[in-house]
Amino acid sequence: MGGETAAATKPGRRILVAVDEGDESVQALRWCLGTFAAASRGDTLILLYVRPPPPTYSVLDASGYLFTEEVTAAIDRYSREVADAVVEKAQKLCTLYSKDQDVDESDHEMKVEVKVAVGDARAVICHMADKLGADVLVMGSHGYGFFKRALLGSVSDYCLRNASCPVLIVKP
Amino acid sequence: MGGETAAATKPGRRILVAVDEGDESVQALRWCLGTFAAASRGDTLILLYVRPPPPTYSVLDASGYLFTEEVTAAIDRYSREVADAVVEKAQKLCTLYSKDQDVDESDHEMKVEVKVAVGDARAVICHMADKLGADVLVMGSHGYGFFKRALLGSVSDYCLRNASCPVLIVKP
Repeated sequence: MGGETAAATKPGRRILVAVDEGDESVQALRWCLGTFAAASRGDTLILLYVRPPPPTYSVLDASGYLFTEEVTAAIDRYSREVADAVVEKAQKLCTLYSKDQDVDESDHEMKVEVKVAVGDARAVICHMADKLGADVLVMGSHGYGFFKRALLGSVSDYCLRNASCPVLIVKP
Repeated sequence: MGGETAAATKPGRRILVAVDEGDESVQALRWCLGTFAAASRGDTLILLYVRPPPPTYSVLDASGYLFTEEVTAAIDRYSREVADAVVEKAQKLCTLYSKDQDVDESDHEMKVEVKVAVGDARAVICHMADKLGADVLVMGSHGYGFFKRALLGSVSDYCLRNASCPVLIVKP
């Protein structure tokens, strides 16, 4: 263990929290705020929501009578609304925890960043963890409903294997 | 989100770190000390080493000429020595990080507990996480060599599915 260089001063950590519509991601964020993240340490919380890509034109070509342009626009609009709702809920939770922390006064407010990306959640989360220089990725144990999970595999499983930073899985 | 009760004061966390002979567990501990655990927050680091159970008498009966009592005693002694070495190495790392942290003066020394248990690592780690009231379990991504892992499955995979607390996986 010779020549070990320990972190003499701990810089604020960049904590990436993957949020989605599920209760599990809310629980993960809540645990993170209550037990992990510390505004007084200068941590930055990055809330990442990944919304699915809009229906592509190739789908339109194959079944144009089902997915007219208006329908795809409506789906996309709905997806944006869900993203807004999820992010708003997550931000509210952050504010609430910041307020309730006696130790964290005005000069120690939790820094919160919000990122909304589009694509396959698994790949995007891993990519963003790298791109944003996350020190740790926090997520719930799932990230898809039962049927989607059966088809696609668990998002958290994928991230555990592919993210370049440590991954913290919070279970219900 | 109404009626949310956030942690007003953050009590020190009980951070259980599963240590073994592998480099991956050393990396996990190092990451934990550098980025996660904070003596100034009153955290307690619990180092857990699980050593395999000694050869049983049923093995002796089947192949007595191979595993005489002296041999099993020698294996057991060796296993204890490995446990001592792993734990000593882990403790040294903790001391090193404690010393190097400018913010953590004498009144803020990292509390370190050491537990050595015997049995199947996967089951024992999950059991101890529960018994010791761990707030989080930190471990490397493996926990067995390649061949053992192929036979037994990854310890971290098992703990992710079965531990009752959040699990933080630190990869090489």
